[in-house]
Amino acid sequence: MERSEKTAAATDNLLTSWPNTREVPALGSGEAMVRELCREAREASRLLATLPTARLDEMLDEIAVHLEKEAPAIFAANAKDIAAAEKAGLSKAIIDRLRITEKSLAAMVKGVQQVRALPQPLGQKITEWERPNGIKIAKIRVPIGVIAIIFESRPNVTIDAAVLCLKTGNATVLRGGKEAIHSNKALIAALQKCPSLPKGAVQLIGDTDRALVPFLCRQSDLIDLIIPRGGHSLIETVVAEARIPVIKHAHGVCSVFVQAKADLAMAEKIVLNAKVQRPGVCNAIETLLIDRAIADKFVPQITATLTKAGVEIRGDETVLKLVSGENIKAATEADWTTEYLDLILATRVVDGLEGALEHLAKYSSHHSDSIVTEDAAIAERYLNEVDSATVYWNASTRFTDGGEFGFGAEIGISTDKLHARGPMGLEELTSYKFVIRGNGQIRT
Amino acid sequence: MERSEKTAAATDNLLTSWPNTREVPALGSGEAMVRELCREAREASRLLATLPTARLDEMLDEIAVHLEKEAPAIFAANAKDIAAAEKAGLSKAIIDRLRITEKSLAAMVKGVQQVRALPQPLGQKITEWERPNGIKIAKIRVPIGVIAIIFESRPNVTIDAAVLCLKTGNATVLRGGKEAIHSNKALIAALQKCPSLPKGAVQLIGDTDRALVPFLCRQSDLIDLIIPRGGHSLIETVVAEARIPVIKHAHGVCSVFVQAKADLAMAEKIVLNAKVQRPGVCNAIETLLIDRAIADKFVPQITATLTKAGVEIRGDETVLKLVSGENIKAATEADWTTEYLDLILATRVVDGLEGALEHLAKYSSHHSDSIVTEDAAIAERYLNEVDSATVYWNASTRFTDGGEFGFGAEIGISTDKLHARGPMGLEELTSYKFVIRGNGQIRT
Repeated sequence: MERSEKTAAATDNLLTSWPNTREVPALGSGEAMVRELCREAREASRLLATLPTARLDEMLDEIAVHLEKEAPAIFAANAKDIAAAEKAGLSKAIIDRLRITEKSLAAMVKGVQQVRALPQPLGQKITEWERPNGIKIAKIRVPIGVIAIIFESRPNVTIDAAVLCLKTGNATVLRGGKEAIHSNKALIAALQKCPSLPKGAVQLIGDTDRALVPFLCRQSDLIDLIIPRGGHSLIETVVAEARIPVIKHAHGVCSVFVQAKADLAMAEKIVLNAKVQRPGVCNAIETLLIDRAIADKFVPQITATLTKAGVEIRGDETVLKLVSGENIKAATEADWTTEYLDLILATRVVDGLEGALEHLAKYSSHHSDSIVTEDAAIAERYLNEVDSATVYWNASTRFTDGGEFGFGAEIGISTDKLHARGPMGLEELTSYKFVIRGNGQIRT
Repeated sequence: MERSEKTAAATDNLLTSWPNTREVPALGSGEAMVRELCREAREASRLLATLPTARLDEMLDEIAVHLEKEAPAIFAANAKDIAAAEKAGLSKAIIDRLRITEKSLAAMVKGVQQVRALPQPLGQKITEWERPNGIKIAKIRVPIGVIAIIFESRPNVTIDAAVLCLKTGNATVLRGGKEAIHSNKALIAALQKCPSLPKGAVQLIGDTDRALVPFLCRQSDLIDLIIPRGGHSLIETVVAEARIPVIKHAHGVCSVFVQAKADLAMAEKIVLNAKVQRPGVCNAIETLLIDRAIADKFVPQITATLTKAGVEIRGDETVLKLVSGENIKAATEADWTTEYLDLILATRVVDGLEGALEHLAKYSSHHSDSIVTEDAAIAERYLNEVDSATVYWNASTRFTDGGEFGFGAEIGISTDKLHARGPMGLEELTSYKFVIRGNGQIRT
């Protein structure tokens, strides 16, 4: 089914009856306000679902323009967040993530333009067929409806998430962290100034009271999906409180397994890249598994390279027999499941492929795992039997990313197995419905 | 990626180390037993995920054979449930649903053979592409893992659910109602006698203590998906307690809208079929919407036909002005959202398409809704704007069914929008993973 202009024309009345105020809505506090924001989002989602791609894209064009136009207000608001963070003594890393610079705002604008340019999955005929009784069944891609996104410090998530959801005809209810509240309000204020954006299409919960998160998670009549993006405690709360489907973006305890038949120069390059290139992200590795058959040779080689790069090794007994030094410590059971997000690597010698498979079944967070080997049969068994969102053969785990996959953008990386797994692009922000056309068929 | 025989050979050792006891496991009670059953299912799921289709199909062949072989034990167990139900004074309808006859057992066996014959979605390459850096990404269909199915009286669900999950490489933890407990134990005992079935692949919780449902819903490390099939209270409990993704099979408040330009003879036939042919199922209609433009003519016509067929009409004010009689009563607000599952039909006159859309946005359970009209433009707007799992033009809502869709079998009809919507076939019992092959690529 084409998303027709006819439908758009038919909904023009509806659009007119919801005039955009061109003012920042008063972002009040408390449960009544959350409920009202969600109710408005539900109304907006009905309209968004009927708009053709051209109308959705028009909104994205306007958002890019207004982000640039409102830059002074955005920088001023961001300066308040930075000042509060400095006063509160937050770490330099957190403050860096909070900061909106000329460069990062330009990147946000470019991000909006990139999403605008992506192919539209809505209206796509996923499959169609005819039954012997003559009814024609088509499975058509449609928006999910209202998506709540609960996230922590980075203000760029605000615009990314809203824009990806808008492109796919979804309304959003955003709930960011208190550290970025002024920045988030200014970004959403800029976005809500776009004249073509229906009222309620992008909502920000301006009250950062933590008690509102459980309340938000129970609005099952108004929200269709919750995406939490943040630390372990946020995700635990959302999963426990939600009465609505949740897609988790939980932690990554990723690994590389260097198998006996690996090209050891390639293995060294991949391990180093996966650990050191950007240790603070979920697709960096936390675990290195080394085949016992090559341990005598490879353990000294890789630990020398890694420790030189500033990595602390947490080794099992076999590793500790082969190497020692200031940055080489004994691993405990907890090390196999810890997401360090730092220059630390749990390192273990395993008995071949079977040993690696056993380790991963027990300890992997099922995010991204890689094998390095020249043996195709062993690689194919690993790819088939390791139950992770993304499994690699002879490549760094750092490619688990919407951009690297070529999705153009991502709303996150799902560690769930339902609906979306791994990097989530536009398609994963859609649902489908069955459209059936008949000529009077009844069931007998 | 082909599901290779090589993999199967490699897992033979694993299979041998989990010998099938060919005995019914002692189905104990309590939380420890639930935990242990889930743990065994998790182990089994690892093995099932690596088996080729031929091995999965072999299990299904054996199940068909053993169901026939164990018929005497199954009938004897079922007689106990029937006797208990009669003693407890349960309704004839419930007792009929509980009863396993020669005919219904033969239908179960045929059902297993039909699932066996269906095309295998596992291993399917959903998409694949190559990135400029040379890594090749393939999106491959894989099992979900462990699926818990919590259901009520009908014992045929037991075998249906287990077999659909086995075909797609998933282990199951089944939890049926206490009315069918003897039947369910006998059915699962027959199934567990199949020599090729790995231990733990199909688990039945034999203890029907209701307190175990919340406990089961929290085993997030061992279960990947919960499918509740039953009444409102069961589904509410599961949604509230679950820390695991749930796909709901909730109620159907379905409708037909007879638009001004409908062929009224066709409309009469469709309404009658959708209401009367089998009123006790979720895809039967509970609401009839009639365009004001034809109300004078169609309301008397359809109410005469329906009341003659034994249907009670709950009409709005306009309907009550046009018709009266013993079986014509006034509708209350609650009637627009009630799933009668009986010969009752809430009937309302609405102002054209807009009126129907408003009614459905407010009251539809988003399961199945149908428009009858000869006006293609109006039909297309309805199909586009009604946000239901299945939307119909000139056909009965009774076709919302895996069998009628040609899926060969269904595990249920999802009223959710995430992962699966509408009738769920084999594909909806699968997840996917990204398999990436490189030659040493690292991220720069």
